[in-house]
Amino acid sequence: MDNERYERGLEMLARVDGEQGDKVVEALADIAPDFGRLMLEFGFGDIYARPGLCLKDRELITISALAAKGACEPQLKVHIHGALNVGWTREEIVEAFMQVALYAGFPAALNAIFAAKAVFAERQ
Amino acid sequence: MDNERYERGLEMLARVDGEQGDKVVEALADIAPDFGRLMLEFGFGDIYARPGLCLKDRELITISALAAKGACEPQLKVHIHGALNVGWTREEIVEAFMQVALYAGFPAALNAIFAAKAVFAERQ
Amino acid sequence: MDNERYERGLEMLARVDGEQGDKVVEALADIAPDFGRLMLEFGFGDIYARPGLCLKDRELITISALAAKGACEPQLKVHIHGALNVGWTREEIVEAFMQVALYAGFPAALNAIFAAKAVFAERQ
Amino acid sequence: MDNERYERGLEMLARVDGEQGDKVVEALADIAPDFGRLMLEFGFGDIYARPGLCLKDRELITISALAAKGACEPQLKVHIHGALNVGWTREEIVEAFMQVALYAGFPAALNAIFAAKAVFAERQ
Amino acid sequence: MDNERYERGLEMLARVDGEQGDKVVEALADIAPDFGRLMLEFGFGDIYARPGLCLKDRELITISALAAKGACEPQLKVHIHGALNVGWTREEIVEAFMQVALYAGFPAALNAIFAAKAVFAERQ
Amino acid sequence: MDNERYERGLEMLARVDGEQGDKVVEALADIAPDFGRLMLEFGFGDIYARPGLCLKDRELITISALAAKGACEPQLKVHIHGALNVGWTREEIVEAFMQVALYAGFPAALNAIFAAKAVFAERQ
Repeated sequence: MDNERYERGLEMLARVDGEQGDKVVEALADIAPDFGRLMLEFGFGDIYARPGLCLKDRELITISALAAKGACEPQLKVHIHGALNVGWTREEIVEAFMQVALYAGFPAALNAIFAAKAVFAERQ
Repeated sequence: MDNERYERGLEMLARVDGEQGDKVVEALADIAPDFGRLMLEFGFGDIYARPGLCLKDRELITISALAAKGACEPQLKVHIHGALNVGWTREEIVEAFMQVALYAGFPAALNAIFAAKAVFAERQ
Repeated sequence: MDNERYERGLEMLARVDGEQGDKVVEALADIAPDFGRLMLEFGFGDIYARPGLCLKDRELITISALAAKGACEPQLKVHIHGALNVGWTREEIVEAFMQVALYAGFPAALNAIFAAKAVFAERQ
Repeated sequence: MDNERYERGLEMLARVDGEQGDKVVEALADIAPDFGRLMLEFGFGDIYARPGLCLKDRELITISALAAKGACEPQLKVHIHGALNVGWTREEIVEAFMQVALYAGFPAALNAIFAAKAVFAERQ
Repeated sequence: MDNERYERGLEMLARVDGEQGDKVVEALADIAPDFGRLMLEFGFGDIYARPGLCLKDRELITISALAAKGACEPQLKVHIHGALNVGWTREEIVEAFMQVALYAGFPAALNAIFAAKAVFAERQ
Repeated sequence: MDNERYERGLEMLARVDGEQGDKVVEALADIAPDFGRLMLEFGFGDIYARPGLCLKDRELITISALAAKGACEPQLKVHIHGALNVGWTREEIVEAFMQVALYAGFPAALNAIFAAKAVFAERQ
């Protein structure tokens, strides 16, 4: 195990996705533990931790990419939590998905907005 | 024609995509002039002009969505110009595409980075 | 609010998607009311209301696009209702999805056919 | 070889895609001749030849699916030729792609409209 | 009906997808019986039965394609069963999805791994 | 720099993609050198180097995923070279893309087959 990258990844994950991220790594524990570790090391330890963009910008990129791509509702929900955790408001997140509608169509935007609605309700 | 929305759209397009955006609307003039107008009115007059997010955030959303979706290189290039126009640096744009790699894979990120490389060269 | 476009959009929505479309707009009311309005104005008031193609052709385009794109089952179901509402038969809708199989593969076609099966059952 | 299905496929291909379709099958001759034959037998002999929808409807489904899916410009161009061959006008084809914009976003619609522009120019 | 191709398709389906495949064909019986037959004849009778690749390789191709494409969980699950049926181990299937992460991103890989987890649990 | 992972990545890249892979890393040198390094370390040093699947299987997964996903022709070509380098024959690669047609449609398969045709011609 690559301790430094793993520790840095764990720390970033905690700041961004909080409990939601932990649950994903836990769900992988019995079937693909290495994948959970590699995702932490590379995704959070290598990429998220880079200085070139702040965490707030990174989460905006992430939810925009996931909403446009589609077919990844569980990950989108984790990162809507993440976007709220790093300082985006509910209104800004919905506004971001309205912007995505121009490039990925109304259904992609609607799916993302309804995912946001579910996440907002969970956090109440 | 819906003059107010059209005028607002033209103004937003000028601020964001500059000449690149004009060329798209011109290229539509002989085949789908209504589509050029509707895109301006709705995309730029209705959505881009909304106060909920600043232009700089909107362009980050746009290039992230386009990079993740793939198969839209011409539009991605227009909006890499746009991202530079509204204040993102070259380094930040490349960094955004590295973040997209996590969610859409390396090929999507590579295609976006090489589109950025071409745009940066054009502007030199 | 743009009254003329909104009214025309409401009217088109009623003719195409009936109750199903209303439910989508209602579900947006508390989280993204502007998005519901913009979708009505632009989608139904601007595009659907254009004279270049009849409603029946527009719904065939819509269900074909949604089936091929995938990952938008709720919207596909709304528009399978829509396709029935504007005069397509159940057999023709299933036949359309078989045609889509050639271009988007068997899984996309199967998902669309099973969405149709669920919609047909709902309407019985 | 399955003569009846192959012959029916050849006949359908000739009616729909004309020369453009022949070129695809020819281009496969040295690398994947069986794939050319299977595509003809299944795509054109089995699916296109079914009575449930007329050829004109089938081509509308096809160009809508291809435009929404994206990343298949060569096939989209073949079928824009096909759509013209079976009776759709240039204006209707462009209108169809405007309808697709609602469901797959502006870039997908723009790419399809510019593919149509290139096909229309070729035919002049 | 094309008896030879159909019989060969049935036999291949039984070897690959077993009961899971039968259920798909049965689920189509009341809504799209021809589609079930055509899928068997073409998919299993024509393609799967070709000598150029062994069944084990074909199932690896299939689960990799489905995982990368996304939005086809039911079909992915059928073919994770299929991959196990033709001799891949659970560990190899998870490993394949880790490889897919490089090309289609972490969410696509996670969705596939969790589909595998569900299939493995079903078979216990 | 993570020397061990980087060295292992370089070695794997050389075995799989040879010159083609080097060219990608070189093309990134002036615009995104860190991305080239991270891709090598994670993609080739971490994932490709894992013992769970042999290189030959990994390349089959890769070309199947890329063909199904679409919109990544440059990467698909690099890995068609890779598939040939690790022992797949031309006929088997084409056969794999025919199998992909079932799950991602004929256009995706055709694009992959024509990419293979171009790669085979280059190597002659």
